[in-house]
Amino acid sequence: MNVLILGVDGYLGWPLAQWLAAAGHTVCGVDNFLRRKAVQEMGSISAIPIADWADRASAFEACYSRPITFYETSLLDYERLVAILGEMVPDAIVHLGEIPSAAYSMRDAEHAALTQHNNVIGSLNLLWAMRAACPDAHLLKLGTMGEYGTPNIAIPEGFFEVEFRGRKDILPFPRQAGSIYHLSKVHDSHNALFAAKTWGLRITDVMQGVVYGTRTDRTPPDERFATRLDFDECFGTAINRFVCQAVIDCPLTIYGSGSQTRGFLPLSDSLRCLELALLNPPNRGEYRVFNQFEYTYSISALADVVKQEATALGMPAQIEHLANPRSECEEHFYQPDREHLVRLGYEPHDHLTQVVRGMLEDVRVHRSRIEPYAQNMRPSIQWS
Amino acid sequence: MNVLILGVDGYLGWPLAQWLAAAGHTVCGVDNFLRRKAVQEMGSISAIPIADWADRASAFEACYSRPITFYETSLLDYERLVAILGEMVPDAIVHLGEIPSAAYSMRDAEHAALTQHNNVIGSLNLLWAMRAACPDAHLLKLGTMGEYGTPNIAIPEGFFEVEFRGRKDILPFPRQAGSIYHLSKVHDSHNALFAAKTWGLRITDVMQGVVYGTRTDRTPPDERFATRLDFDECFGTAINRFVCQAVIDCPLTIYGSGSQTRGFLPLSDSLRCLELALLNPPNRGEYRVFNQFEYTYSISALADVVKQEATALGMPAQIEHLANPRSECEEHFYQPDREHLVRLGYEPHDHLTQVVRGMLEDVRVHRSRIEPYAQNMRPSIQWS
Repeated sequence: MNVLILGVDGYLGWPLAQWLAAAGHTVCGVDNFLRRKAVQEMGSISAIPIADWADRASAFEACYSRPITFYETSLLDYERLVAILGEMVPDAIVHLGEIPSAAYSMRDAEHAALTQHNNVIGSLNLLWAMRAACPDAHLLKLGTMGEYGTPNIAIPEGFFEVEFRGRKDILPFPRQAGSIYHLSKVHDSHNALFAAKTWGLRITDVMQGVVYGTRTDRTPPDERFATRLDFDECFGTAINRFVCQAVIDCPLTIYGSGSQTRGFLPLSDSLRCLELALLNPPNRGEYRVFNQFEYTYSISALADVVKQEATALGMPAQIEHLANPRSECEEHFYQPDREHLVRLGYEPHDHLTQVVRGMLEDVRVHRSRIEPYAQNMRPSIQWS
Repeated sequence: MNVLILGVDGYLGWPLAQWLAAAGHTVCGVDNFLRRKAVQEMGSISAIPIADWADRASAFEACYSRPITFYETSLLDYERLVAILGEMVPDAIVHLGEIPSAAYSMRDAEHAALTQHNNVIGSLNLLWAMRAACPDAHLLKLGTMGEYGTPNIAIPEGFFEVEFRGRKDILPFPRQAGSIYHLSKVHDSHNALFAAKTWGLRITDVMQGVVYGTRTDRTPPDERFATRLDFDECFGTAINRFVCQAVIDCPLTIYGSGSQTRGFLPLSDSLRCLELALLNPPNRGEYRVFNQFEYTYSISALADVVKQEATALGMPAQIEHLANPRSECEEHFYQPDREHLVRLGYEPHDHLTQVVRGMLEDVRVHRSRIEPYAQNMRPSIQWS
């Protein structure tokens, strides 16, 4: 299969390129290095050092005995995008080319507009470009479980049957996103559904949980294959923050009570699920939604696991509760489905403890690199 | 009340300024004249001649004995917007400042991106600017009934109680918009709900039907107060097109079967409803949705009324069915609520025949002005 990865230089994009190449697929990629620049803008770094793109590409070619075709461009450049799709004629496009941070989008009006412009208009351009250049390709697009918010009912996969005043219909499940970033993903989903129905595109929309982890079974033993691990306020997830805090002997900071519950999955599971989706494409005109996560955990439960594993590795950790900078329900019902991927062969197991231990091991060797950035892990951006 | 109208130079904005001034309110306005430029871009004109803004403003000052403060700017200029809101400190903002055309947004990738960029980022800027400069003001924002699409169940006003697998919640009603433009309104609605909940803004989101008509009870007898009436493929609604076709002795063109059913309301009703919303603002942090239309009609029923009234005025009309350029259900259930405005005092009556007759009278005097543009009424933009 010929797969184009948009955002190939990112946390998921780079290991996905390796994962697919190891399975024999041809991989090409697009990136504009916006993630590298945004983390720099936040005055932060990746906890794990990452190679420049040129070094990554060399390592890739040496390891897999074929080059990775690469284009540096933003999806906002529509003409360039059409030209690339026309040149590659990919069987599938994995769209990871978006700004992925809630806090970054809530910094101020400028970052809010930047996030929605980049994500919504970039993805809209992609839909039009596919229509023009490769209407038969499979678009595997990354949404987020955060699109759904925390409704007081179970969360199906994209659609549900509604009975209302004695009549029935199958409708998109309502979205209640909790940040300007999450809203950008909601907008993308609405646009994508329309494009599939109207233009006959094949689209899988993955509502992905929070991905954690530093390695996969298919990561070659060469540091140029390492993927980034951010810990700053904007681009660091809670698990990443906890791991880095434990390593530099700072308290693990929980926002609010820590009862907030979300879906999570290890990096390997994310890549395995994306591969399953690629191997089982939808029909022309089909827009399908996969909820993609391994298990749900509360933020407190995550902190407890990091604390326990860090302590076992000789890094005793404390937990500190901070005032929650976000507007979110802390006590809520949460019961999302994730059957579609299981039906395709995904076998979720609870890997949290094992993967967190690997993260701690991989990050602790960079302790002195991270220490100067302790302040970057404290929240300063307030939702309201 | 001090009311700021965004899009004050438009089809609704200009008569709304008159309507509110006649009721004793202070009105100021913003426009970037994008509508005038876009109709020009389509190679078309308003059937009814409209005055330049300078002449409109002079007429306004002479009629209402006070000037209308005006700023020429796009909502994409965030800093300017904050400055204007800080200077005016409006009690209410009526947001009509968006590109309103489905067909225009479906022309090509460029017009799709232009529409979503202008509408979504402009409205997002407005939310941030209100937060910064006038968080207590009431935002009266125009969505469209088209956000809902045509579900097989009744359409409530924004939210509905859902029972799913034995649990209940009140959730946003799912949106299934039928064009890139309609999707931009869906995105606005999601962003606005978030802003109300997170920042405590007061927001009324009006899901408006298609407005028709050329006059109101409060239109002063001076042609500088006339509002535009577009008939071109992009900016002309079906009723406008039928009226102009009847006047120039062309067949009234129905897209597809004509069984498509939508909500419609006369211009006077639209302004009356907006005034009711302004006089009854929501609380801080409240996001409420009003479905705003008088009656629902099928497109065929509209054509029949135009044909009948035109014939009565000595302009016998024919009806022609064209292949539908849009992707839409032609046979569908349609039962939207509109109780919120009725509770505030709106009294819907069936004004269609009477208003269509007025439109025909107002437009027929411009017959020779419209005749050269007959071709602009034929659809060329295909959805798929």
